[in-house]
Amino acid sequence: MSDPIPVADAEHDRALYEPLTQSVRHLVDLTIRSEADDDAVRRAHQLIDEAAALLGSRATPGSFGVRTDAAGQRMPWGNVAIGLRNAIAPPLDVHRDSDGRATVDLVLGAPYEGPPGQVHGGVCALVLDHVLGATAHHRHQTAFTGTLTIRYVRPTWLGPLRAEAWIEREEGSKTFAVGHILGPDGEVTAQAEGVFIRPRPAR
Amino acid sequence: MSDPIPVADAEHDRALYEPLTQSVRHLVDLTIRSEADDDAVRRAHQLIDEAAALLGSRATPGSFGVRTDAAGQRMPWGNVAIGLRNAIAPPLDVHRDSDGRATVDLVLGAPYEGPPGQVHGGVCALVLDHVLGATAHHRHQTAFTGTLTIRYVRPTWLGPLRAEAWIEREEGSKTFAVGHILGPDGEVTAQAEGVFIRPRPAR
Repeated sequence: MSDPIPVADAEHDRALYEPLTQSVRHLVDLTIRSEADDDAVRRAHQLIDEAAALLGSRATPGSFGVRTDAAGQRMPWGNVAIGLRNAIAPPLDVHRDSDGRATVDLVLGAPYEGPPGQVHGGVCALVLDHVLGATAHHRHQTAFTGTLTIRYVRPTWLGPLRAEAWIEREEGSKTFAVGHILGPDGEVTAQAEGVFIRPRPAR
Repeated sequence: MSDPIPVADAEHDRALYEPLTQSVRHLVDLTIRSEADDDAVRRAHQLIDEAAALLGSRATPGSFGVRTDAAGQRMPWGNVAIGLRNAIAPPLDVHRDSDGRATVDLVLGAPYEGPPGQVHGGVCALVLDHVLGATAHHRHQTAFTGTLTIRYVRPTWLGPLRAEAWIEREEGSKTFAVGHILGPDGEVTAQAEGVFIRPRPAR
């Protein structure tokens, strides 16, 4: 694994990119739901291409990868689940207890739809993969998913949701985690179990 | 389930929204990778907000839901995996054989990152959920995921990928499907098995 790329001024970058990304999330949502007249849509399209040209005037090749701030904290800003610069990410703001229990409250709208009005089963899997995986993180080290099993017990409706996960047991570098997604009335919509693996340090 | 919403002119809407959404996908990618100077980022942010105001001048409440064109074909345009108006969707263009085998070639870039340079395990799950589920579609009827199990056997690197799925067996409304993701050299990176359920018709 390559060395993390240090970032000169993470707070400056956060203040610049976090609200930008929030606006792009809003744009993704409206691109799905817009019923504007054709001229407005075409003008919006032009503005979006202008914005992309500005952002692309200088861009890192490849992906965001792993970077660290001046204090050595990981900045997973490109991450599809939690990245503050990734408009696909809701983003998940996962809270971890000292015993490894992970919880996240989230609201999933139109961009996460599968069946009409419902969260796509694969998005439930993405959320559960990430929240179960978070239980296995030790001292900022990422854990990789080994296996993941999900049981969909009832529809997960778009709207406010909670995901929770906790450690069932640990064996060496493996963490066996379980968890679920809860709907607004606290009913379980999907259950998950997974095995997560921490790779050996590179050095 | 509510009746599908008929769309007056699907071809017109496709010509308007498909390239718009492609531009928004590009924007999502550049929002992650941009290294432009601050003024350019701030100007891009303004343009994006202007575009969102135009698109939002009239918008459907809630989600896109299920709509049909004049010929009665389903238009899952808001779908997070395949929706032509959903910038989160790569979008997956799944090909189905007459025996239900489903295949999709796709390229996943920076917006789908989990570990550095790799596709997030949850995105692999989203792709596999959708491709396995596609084997269970009968005459345009959506199948819901019952259970899904994924084994991650090696890293899935960002870049060109293929996902394949086929029916293992069917029992009444249940389809037992298996499949995998292949990397560029044809090696299996993740394996999946799932049970998919077709709901009884509403009427």
